[in-house]
Amino acid sequence: MSMLQTKPKAVVLLSGGMDSAVTLAIAKAAGFDSYALSLDYGQRHRAELDAAAKLAGRLGAVSHKTVKLDLRSLGGSALTADIDVPEQASSGIPITYVPARNTIMLSIAMGWAEVLNARDLFVGVNAVDYSGYPDCRPAFVAAFQSLAHVATKGGVEGEKWQVHAPLIDLSKADIVNRGIELGVEFGLTVSCYQADEQGRACARCDACRLRAKGFDDAGVVDPTSYVGD
Amino acid sequence: MSMLQTKPKAVVLLSGGMDSAVTLAIAKAAGFDSYALSLDYGQRHRAELDAAAKLAGRLGAVSHKTVKLDLRSLGGSALTADIDVPEQASSGIPITYVPARNTIMLSIAMGWAEVLNARDLFVGVNAVDYSGYPDCRPAFVAAFQSLAHVATKGGVEGEKWQVHAPLIDLSKADIVNRGIELGVEFGLTVSCYQADEQGRACARCDACRLRAKGFDDAGVVDPTSYVGD
Repeated sequence: MSMLQTKPKAVVLLSGGMDSAVTLAIAKAAGFDSYALSLDYGQRHRAELDAAAKLAGRLGAVSHKTVKLDLRSLGGSALTADIDVPEQASSGIPITYVPARNTIMLSIAMGWAEVLNARDLFVGVNAVDYSGYPDCRPAFVAAFQSLAHVATKGGVEGEKWQVHAPLIDLSKADIVNRGIELGVEFGLTVSCYQADEQGRACARCDACRLRAKGFDDAGVVDPTSYVGD
Repeated sequence: MSMLQTKPKAVVLLSGGMDSAVTLAIAKAAGFDSYALSLDYGQRHRAELDAAAKLAGRLGAVSHKTVKLDLRSLGGSALTADIDVPEQASSGIPITYVPARNTIMLSIAMGWAEVLNARDLFVGVNAVDYSGYPDCRPAFVAAFQSLAHVATKGGVEGEKWQVHAPLIDLSKADIVNRGIELGVEFGLTVSCYQADEQGRACARCDACRLRAKGFDDAGVVDPTSYVGD
């Protein structure tokens, strides 16, 4: 007879970018059965969603769901509306910020977690390189965790929720190194805000620049493909 | 030359039921330009969404959006999954509870509010008749308001968000009376969890029973139609 060991379950937000891929690998290494959740919110960079499906399989997620939510109808971001993606760095909150995106994604993750009877959520937010995004900061993660305790059946019954943001204090180079340790295939991840259908990156947007700098700083060659390669 | 007065904007969650209709009327009476938001989350009672569109027009909303989000894929509730809607009262959290529904809806409302530059959200949650739903309590509303201050551009920049839940302490009879004062056409509202395509109610589910009791207690005749009328 075999000993049956039950791993705790976690819902992991998986965009298909490098940060969420490393986060999924970290959840697995921490001993969780991962339920990966992607949001099809009408983003320009659809290749991200294909990447998420591949990464969920490669990184051992027990299940992967893509939930559709049409945020385009709300407008207001270069990632969903007919606004050009900027190709130079800007100060303040960037136009690529999608209003309430992380709040919405964590809310849906929390709903799935209630159904699964999971109490752990993982999100790959990072305060170092995305300091312009209000919903990538530790104060946001803490506030969402507090909300989970009053918003849910489990929370009201006294169970402890935890919102894990293991990348929050890491530099992009740290994230690259952590991913390499954990066997993340970075060639499958898509970071570019305007990747083509094959997932090839533009090399010019903020996300491409941040990624390239991270790999440079880590002294690692990025296996990503660029348009024109 | 006319004096131009700008009213403050509010995003009002509008399900098509009587509580959210009264909430929209209250937002208008309080002097807001209302942007009504409905969520098509794969609910059984689709007639609710048709009702929401009519009510938005009748109650003077400046705009009405219906955002699609397929919560059925997460399962777990009699309102979205293949679980029968119960026809007798139960104790504890009912099976009609949709995991994280109010958190998700408020998150989307917050996103639209950021785009509109609004800082007021209205939600028709009610703690009296829905004591079994964790996300219908004052503690939940307060926690979401706290989250808005750290999750958003406006909040980080020091602007004050307010989540209005004007029905939270009212009985169903109080809600009926408030709606009549404000001219809400209750015949347009759909409460039933399993209304037919014409919006006719079953008279047997929890929502129908609560509604009937509210009108009885208020001493008002409910103009709603029932299946078989």
